[in-house]
Order: sequence, then C-alpha cells, then structure tokens
Amino acid sequence: MSTPSEVRASFRSGSSRTTAGLADGFQQANLVAVPAEHAFDFLLFAVRNPAPCPIVDVVEAGRWTPSVAPGADLRTDLPAYRVWRDGDLVAEPGDVTGAWRDDLVSFLLGCSFTFEHVLVAAGIPLRHLATGGNVAMYDTTRPCRPAGVFSGNLVVSMRPIPAGRVDDVVRICSALPWAHGAPVHVGDPAALGIADLARPDYGDAAEVAPGEVPVFWACGVTPQNVLRHSRIPFAITHAPGHMFVTDRPADAAP
Amino acid sequence: MSTPSEVRASFRSGSSRTTAGLADGFQQANLVAVPAEHAFDFLLFAVRNPAPCPIVDVVEAGRWTPSVAPGADLRTDLPAYRVWRDGDLVAEPGDVTGAWRDDLVSFLLGCSFTFEHVLVAAGIPLRHLATGGNVAMYDTTRPCRPAGVFSGNLVVSMRPIPAGRVDDVVRICSALPWAHGAPVHVGDPAALGIADLARPDYGDAAEVAPGEVPVFWACGVTPQNVLRHSRIPFAITHAPGHMFVTDRPADAAP
Repeated sequence: MSTPSEVRASFRSGSSRTTAGLADGFQQANLVAVPAEHAFDFLLFAVRNPAPCPIVDVVEAGRWTPSVAPGADLRTDLPAYRVWRDGDLVAEPGDVTGAWRDDLVSFLLGCSFTFEHVLVAAGIPLRHLATGGNVAMYDTTRPCRPAGVFSGNLVVSMRPIPAGRVDDVVRICSALPWAHGAPVHVGDPAALGIADLARPDYGDAAEVAPGEVPVFWACGVTPQNVLRHSRIPFAITHAPGHMFVTDRPADAAP
Repeated sequence: MSTPSEVRASFRSGSSRTTAGLADGFQQANLVAVPAEHAFDFLLFAVRNPAPCPIVDVVEAGRWTPSVAPGADLRTDLPAYRVWRDGDLVAEPGDVTGAWRDDLVSFLLGCSFTFEHVLVAAGIPLRHLATGGNVAMYDTTRPCRPAGVFSGNLVVSMRPIPAGRVDDVVRICSALPWAHGAPVHVGDPAALGIADLARPDYGDAAEVAPGEVPVFWACGVTPQNVLRHSRIPFAITHAPGHMFVTDRPADAAP
C-alpha cells in the first residue's frame, strides 16, 4: 500500500486516477480555493453547514501547504482539478500551478472516502465499492444555511445498508464529524425531495435490495453546487472523486 | 425565573449586572465584534481554536440580531460592553448603539456559564458559585493556533472538583463542545505554565481542598487577550461576566 506522500508525489509527477481506495486509512479531502474577497463568506458557509462542509484545514492566501500534509503542494498534488469562472466549469487540468493566484484561500473539506474506509473495516458492505461504480448522489430540496454570496441546496450521497446494520452505521459515522458525520436521513427519499432513487443526479445508481434501507449522507459535492450557484468570478476545486490525500489517519479528529 | 428575552429587555432598558445564574438553563455567549476587514482572520482563529472560541453564532455586517435570539439587538441587549481601539480598552458602556459601525461582524462564542449550569444540575459542587466569587482564570504558556493578525496564548479557568467526580465532569463537558467542551487539563498547573494557583490572573482564587483536583477549561477570556495582542484599530466585546443570553437551551447543539 502506498503512503499519502507517495500518492501525492505520483500525482505531482503527472499521473491521474480517482483516489478511491488509495492510501487506505488516511483522510481524504475536497478542495475549494476562492479569492480572499470571498473567503470570509465561504468559511462562514462551511461553519454554518458542517455536515456537507466539515473543515479539515484552511490554508491562507499566498500559501499552498496544508498543516495536515507537511511538504505537500495543493497546486500539483491532486490527480485532477476543476477551474471555475463566473460559476462555469472552464477546465479540468491535472495541475493548476499556472492558474493559481496569490489571493486564493484554500479550504480542505472532509470526504466520504474517509468514513467508507471505517465502515468497511467494521464489516459493513458498501455496494458501489463491490461493483466498482461511483456512489449515487442526489440534489435535494433541503436548503443549506446561506452565508454572504453562497447559498444552495444540500446534495446527498446514498448507500444501501442492511437494516440490521443501520444502527452501527449511525453510531460509527456520528463519531466522524470531520467526514460528514451521522447520516442526514434514513429511509424515505421523498423526505429529501428525491423523486426516483434509480436516477441519481451524479454517480451511479445502486439497487436497494430486500432487507436493505437507503441511508443518506451530506455530500462534498454540495460546495461545488453552491459555487456554481454563486457565480463568483474565479475558483479552483478538485475534480469529483479526485481528492487530496492527507497525512491524517481516518479516525483522527482535525 | 426570568426568560432570556426578559433578561435582554431589562438590559436594553438600562439595568446592568453579571449574567451568572440569570435565565438558568439557557446558553450564554461571549461577544466579539470586529470590522469586516478582520472578520475572516477572526473566524479562522475561532475555527482553529474551538476550545476557547466555540462558535455559537455569527452575525454578518449590517445586522445585529443573531439567529439564536430572534428579536434581540446585540448593540443594547448585553448588560455591559467593552470598546477597544488599537488594542486598548477605551470604554465600558452599557449600550454601544452610538459606537456601532456598519462594517462590524459579530461573533457569539460559547461560555462557561452554560456548562456550569449543567454540572450543578448533575450534583457537581462548584466552589465559586457557593462563595459568590468569580471563577479563577490564568494565563498559560500554551499558544493558540494563530490566524492572520490574531495570535496569543490560551487563557484557562480552574474549578476544584472532588476527585471522585472528575470522570463525570469530563464526560458531561465532552458532550458540550459549544461551551468549551472537555477540560484541557486535569491536575498539574505547571503543565500549563501556571506558577501559583493562589494568584489567578483574572477572577478570584479558589482553594483546592484535600480530596479535590484542579480542573482546567479553555476560557472565553482568550479572545479578548488575543484582540489586545493584535492591536486591530477597533473592536467591541462584552464586559467579562456580562454575557449575551440566548434563547437556546444549555444542552442544545448550535
């Protein structure tokens, strides 16, 4: 198994792939970098919406090395990035050194890859990992708490869980607030405004088999939705599934 | 017993006293209001130092009514304020309507009055409440994590706890992260750089009797120390012990 610094070095030297299953046992993180003029609003949005946007680290303007990964470079060490202008996705490069600006403040936000590792270690089966697909994700009708220019609805991920293990899942995830925490809903998709589980808005549909219950978590796609909605002039994020791998163990509080 | 809104109304109409024991069972909060240009740095300081600065609410520039107390006015509803210029305390008025600025962002931070209420309800004796004194507080040599212009050492409060109840105290307070959370240290004052328990830096000394252990919590005086150290041009805070009383129950998460 590769260490987090080996994984980051491979991306820095040009390779690219999803980070699912990489450097197992270490926290992974969503990246959102916004100009300093919008940094207060985004930090406040994250504080007000800790389930979709749990703050793992904040790197101030003019810097690109987070405290959760000494020696790393946020401009090169992710496998794929997204560059946003006026709310539009304009590029998906493997390196953003050229696009980086001195006024960018970087936010690392917790990721479901972290809690999936802990659930699997506890013997909870996760279908999308077994089938090799991406997790199913849905837009909801539940508004986030707005902050300044940032507002929008919560995005959730869904995993079918055997009914007898739902209590374990809730207990385990409640102890991982830096990785989205406890599920936001168990059971009824309609309660979140989801019309059809078979048609996710992002990722791949997952069958809910007899004896299983759909369990919904706040999702790290939420901030990208909010970013698009805000139409701020410039931002850089990771590409979905292509996360920043930190040196912090999955079960360690920030 | 008065309700939170009755307590706030009495301060709005000019009365002033410490809020210790007022509107028992409701969360109280420290107030720190800084100009928008310093708001990102202060919010990040609070995020990085959740033990001394647990965020209960943030009120954006141009507003003075927090979500935790609909109808309240942060400019009039505290019993006493402090006005700071260039890091110096320049006034302690009972109303700051005249000093308020449109660019002030207000932070409400959790307060030990909240967890003291819960401890007393659990039958834990607290000496300073029995004697009618103020809790003992100490400067430590433990640095806070800095953020932008804000840096400084942690301030702690100390309460002597019967040795047999220390486990209960840690368990109860761990569940109240919005009120400073678990103690930061139990037992040895020297571990925090405190030379003499009998000489607190703020508040009144409390005897540690035989069979008792000194227990130390991160303290809401920390941000005022940090504010003084930063020497930013302008800020408004509550006066120590003269807190904002919210409508939120003491045991309710923000």
